[in-house]
Amino acid sequence: MPMILAANANAQGSHVGEWRHPDAWDKPAANIANAVRLAQIAEAGKMDLLFLADGNGVRNLDKPDLFAATSPSDRPGVFEPVTLLSALAMVTRHIGLVATTTTTYDEPFHVARRFASLDHISGGRAGWNLVTTSNPGDALNFSREEHVARPTRYERANEFAEVVKGLWDSWADDAFPQDKASGRFLHPDKVHALNHKGPHFQVAGPLNAPRPPQGHPVGFSAGQSETGKDLAARHSDCVFAIEGSLPAAQTLYADIKGRLAKYGRAPDDLKILSGVTIFVGETAQEAEDLAGALDDLVPVAVGVDYLSKMMGQDMKRYPLDEPMPDFDGRYAGPTGIGQAILNVALEQGLTVRQTSRRILPQMAGNMFKGDPIQVADVMEQWYRGQGCDGFMVAAPVVPTGLERFTRLVIPELQRRGLFRTEYEGRTLRENLGLKRPPDRFSR
Amino acid sequence: MPMILAANANAQGSHVGEWRHPDAWDKPAANIANAVRLAQIAEAGKMDLLFLADGNGVRNLDKPDLFAATSPSDRPGVFEPVTLLSALAMVTRHIGLVATTTTTYDEPFHVARRFASLDHISGGRAGWNLVTTSNPGDALNFSREEHVARPTRYERANEFAEVVKGLWDSWADDAFPQDKASGRFLHPDKVHALNHKGPHFQVAGPLNAPRPPQGHPVGFSAGQSETGKDLAARHSDCVFAIEGSLPAAQTLYADIKGRLAKYGRAPDDLKILSGVTIFVGETAQEAEDLAGALDDLVPVAVGVDYLSKMMGQDMKRYPLDEPMPDFDGRYAGPTGIGQAILNVALEQGLTVRQTSRRILPQMAGNMFKGDPIQVADVMEQWYRGQGCDGFMVAAPVVPTGLERFTRLVIPELQRRGLFRTEYEGRTLRENLGLKRPPDRFSR
Repeated sequence: MPMILAANANAQGSHVGEWRHPDAWDKPAANIANAVRLAQIAEAGKMDLLFLADGNGVRNLDKPDLFAATSPSDRPGVFEPVTLLSALAMVTRHIGLVATTTTTYDEPFHVARRFASLDHISGGRAGWNLVTTSNPGDALNFSREEHVARPTRYERANEFAEVVKGLWDSWADDAFPQDKASGRFLHPDKVHALNHKGPHFQVAGPLNAPRPPQGHPVGFSAGQSETGKDLAARHSDCVFAIEGSLPAAQTLYADIKGRLAKYGRAPDDLKILSGVTIFVGETAQEAEDLAGALDDLVPVAVGVDYLSKMMGQDMKRYPLDEPMPDFDGRYAGPTGIGQAILNVALEQGLTVRQTSRRILPQMAGNMFKGDPIQVADVMEQWYRGQGCDGFMVAAPVVPTGLERFTRLVIPELQRRGLFRTEYEGRTLRENLGLKRPPDRFSR
Repeated sequence: MPMILAANANAQGSHVGEWRHPDAWDKPAANIANAVRLAQIAEAGKMDLLFLADGNGVRNLDKPDLFAATSPSDRPGVFEPVTLLSALAMVTRHIGLVATTTTTYDEPFHVARRFASLDHISGGRAGWNLVTTSNPGDALNFSREEHVARPTRYERANEFAEVVKGLWDSWADDAFPQDKASGRFLHPDKVHALNHKGPHFQVAGPLNAPRPPQGHPVGFSAGQSETGKDLAARHSDCVFAIEGSLPAAQTLYADIKGRLAKYGRAPDDLKILSGVTIFVGETAQEAEDLAGALDDLVPVAVGVDYLSKMMGQDMKRYPLDEPMPDFDGRYAGPTGIGQAILNVALEQGLTVRQTSRRILPQMAGNMFKGDPIQVADVMEQWYRGQGCDGFMVAAPVVPTGLERFTRLVIPELQRRGLFRTEYEGRTLRENLGLKRPPDRFSR
């Protein structure tokens, strides 16, 4: 099984200062021409899939300088991911199309339908990244006074995933003969009304779509909490993970793979993709220079504001040039990126200022930087060392960072036999080496 | 202002027997190649827009013969419309893209976002057909035990439309300078948080999308009840109407246009599109033959079942060759198509059997049939006679019916100066002769 390479397809790069860089897109907000170009770069590189993060709110309205610096899911001027990927399906032929949709403020019938539709439109290239909404403010956009509490969100997410999969199985693969001569449009005995009744959802079904080409569009999730890891082991085909060091990644890898047996699944049924921002140059110095130039585009105050957001604490209270505090174990930020950065800062004795610069390539609790050989070396080490099954690659600057990755690093990975030179299959599921789930009529 | 011509873009034609006809698509269920072809036929004909009906349930599970005969909104194997139109945006350049989305079982934030996204993807060609869900069974797909009652659905729909428009106005048109040199990504003083608090929805905003190219994607609705007509007069840019005769259409036209002043709008601010199935042949006989051939593809029992559905009564209780009953005024079907057909049947003294055949071209409470001159004549008569501002054209057989309409009828309409020979504007709104709503910062 070759290494899996996913491309972050958000319109802005993973570095907070990115959008101001001369190489970055002009006018990245909701720009379809840019999105098409990015998709075509990733597909020319034979990458497995395009991934779009998402959220349903605009954060940091009180801090306008952070608007452009906020993570892709909180940005003010973005496409809705499923509509965007439906469009990109028409200008690509092989690459997978993976969109984030929340389970907290949407309906399983709608979500099942949209991803089934995307799977039909793309000929079997759709993936759904299941999330629970983490931003409390999003609740206010959905007629709620308070955000759904975390344990409830995860319960709801698990049930949501059950319902969505059940709806995708509404019809047998061969339920629609559409035979003009006999007048048999469909087989009425090959429909399965779900009749789900659970604590959070009651959904009758059937779905008004034929079974998706992939059976089930590929399921993704993230989250490194206990509940997040269990949800992935139970429901996902792929999981995004973020760790700042190989030993930590190896521990997480073993932990997640070890949870699969409990749900009657084999270790290979769930692929672990490690999130990383890749700074690559023709030379190591070129990569360093790019990183420095990007850091310099972010004023110190904005960097500290951003660090505050990622730590879940006001970092202005701490001296800029003293070592990062350990918060007496009361860290209150996200389980992935924030925790990974804090671990790195404490291990390496970074100051607040240094940590704020370290977190600026924001998608990366992890970051690989260097010339093509150096970057390929560390990717190989993580992959062969069971730190991951592949990578969720964020470019620091879009589109040049992705173009450079496909031009400089991918050929080196191919030379080492680590990455494909042609797409193996027709569907995303086939390219990822995942089994197609049989329909319930043939199980 | 030229006549408006909208194309029904559902994968199956408007006649119940259509899918079995030799000219109809093979395998119409969720077939993207077919959808692309249909869009390109309509655009080559310079038609204003593609329209997709929709619903969130499969009806007639107990009557498999009706599966293929049910209206597009209830079919078992369809695309979700917004995903499909996002895809079609990439293979067309001018034609408008109008999708139906319910207000009964969706959230205004999601709907505002998806249509804003489609408008950005398509460069200003999106339209939203607002409906309330009429099929009670759909409730069971959304964790409800009972369908939302009709008056509540309309109250909710009106408030839903307010919220969606408010969210589209979240940002001034020039809120996102994205200026690299100054570091000004957006103007924090050009955001408007909606903070809507109403009986059905509380939505804070702002939307996480720049203002759509059209300001507001074009708003459509249908429904000929008092509440439906008022909703259109208050919120819609275009309304679909169905009448079986010109005098009835003229009455409805005057009624709807007369309601606009109440909401501070001019008669020209709302376009009325009359729904019609067009059977056109090189000769009148060819059109008749096609209609007969299609009728013959539908067994009498299926036709009567379908008539039952459209009348809201079991029509098997009535003798097949006796005149249609008037139900003592207790007609219980839909306000548009069903009522129009019943009126025609009573006026013309049709029998139950004749009425069941008359309703088989199901989109049409109205039907125009003949050679190109005859069809253009009646279209001109309706248009000049203020029966409508244009037509929602359904083809009896897809795609040949639409291809024939664009090849035979449109050139005749153009010759008479009734229809465009080139698209006038860049956006759907411009092509329809509708004003672009200014943002609230420049009002």
